Amino acid sequence: MESKNISKAVIRRLPRYYRYLSDLKDSGVERISSQDLSALMRITASQVRQDLNCFGGFGQQGYGYNVESLYKEIANILGLDQQYTAIVIGAGNMGKSIAQYKNFSRRGFNIIAVFDNDPSVIGTKISDFEVKSITELEDFVGNNKVDVAMLTVPREVTRDVAEKVVALGIKGIWNFSPMGLLVSDESVVVENVHLSDSLMVLGYRLRNSRLT
Amino acid sequence: MESKNISKAVIRRLPRYYRYLSDLKDSGVERISSQDLSALMRITASQVRQDLNCFGGFGQQGYGYNVESLYKEIANILGLDQQYTAIVIGAGNMGKSIAQYKNFSRRGFNIIAVFDNDPSVIGTKISDFEVKSITELEDFVGNNKVDVAMLTVPREVTRDVAEKVVALGIKGIWNFSPMGLLVSDESVVVENVHLSDSLMVLGYRLRNSRLT
Repeated sequence: MESKNISKAVIRRLPRYYRYLSDLKDSGVERISSQDLSALMRITASQVRQDLNCFGGFGQQGYGYNVESLYKEIANILGLDQQYTAIVIGAGNMGKSIAQYKNFSRRGFNIIAVFDNDPSVIGTKISDFEVKSITELEDFVGNNKVDVAMLTVPREVTRDVAEKVVALGIKGIWNFSPMGLLVSDESVVVENVHLSDSLMVLGYRLRNSRLT
Repeated sequence: MESKNISKAVIRRLPRYYRYLSDLKDSGVERISSQDLSALMRITASQVRQDLNCFGGFGQQGYGYNVESLYKEIANILGLDQQYTAIVIGAGNMGKSIAQYKNFSRRGFNIIAVFDNDPSVIGTKISDFEVKSITELEDFVGNNKVDVAMLTVPREVTRDVAEKVVALGIKGIWNFSPMGLLVSDESVVVENVHLSDSLMVLGYRLRNSRLT
């Protein structure tokens, strides 16, 4: 199986497949048809079959998919057994929330430090972390392997902070700034979180509430 | 134009079209081909044409799409001129972050109150909001039009809080609990925010970094 052949659109759907299959597994469901899976995923059954064929997750005619094995296969593709180290930059409410969120380490993302530039915040505690000064970032990254920087800084400084992070050799950025971020270094991976997108869909659905 | 004919998958892409068109407009770009738009959107050009045809956003051969008019059309479909009232339930870090976030009101979502059940939090200030006791929720909803409840409560109480909100007649739920939420009342619209999905995609891309 060559993961490079999996399209970006399919990859972006995999976490959702993973969640639904996890729920099914926990509910004791052993197999599921592409029809039923498509209803959960809100895409067509043919799209489900096409998605899962991409990585060899073949259903059997008249049987459907084995929930447990499909679940494991998707976890494997997503690399959920991998471990990553992450730092949070920006110890505002979002940064605090991220730093305290237990679920990320279950996905292999282990936060090891939190940074801020505000003297009144530096040195305060967030869970087990004592917030470090941003001036310590370079030394910290020099002395610790850091895979991902989670950016929860104000919009106007996001680009500068991102450039600094990239210059220090960090290869992954999880950006919470409402400004979508592009970095010049192609070897760096950026995922932007756009909370407003979900809110716009909610607004649409409120006005067209037959659309579920 | 009959918005009910627009598929859910297209609706979920509209906020991204909207963001990219907004950036293009701000950069002074007047028109864009389906090819260039598809590169931004990371879907095929034929998917772009199909999406935009759904709501009559026809490009012209050899010209492409007019950025300004497509932008306005999508804003119109998403109903970004609409105004909604919202309350935040759960005044932890995520709740505080949401309550202070300026961008949501730009999207028409106006937060009017924040609730919690923790006596040490009730009465404290978040921006202009004095955190109310959850025991005041029923009276508040009786006296104020509330379109959306934004739930930032712990996983284990999410279902109970959602049921209470639904019983009070609130028709929209924006759920930040890591547990995806389903409610029994079909007239209620739920949008779940799954931050971990984006993180899983980041992990995948870190290990397959040619995939952008």
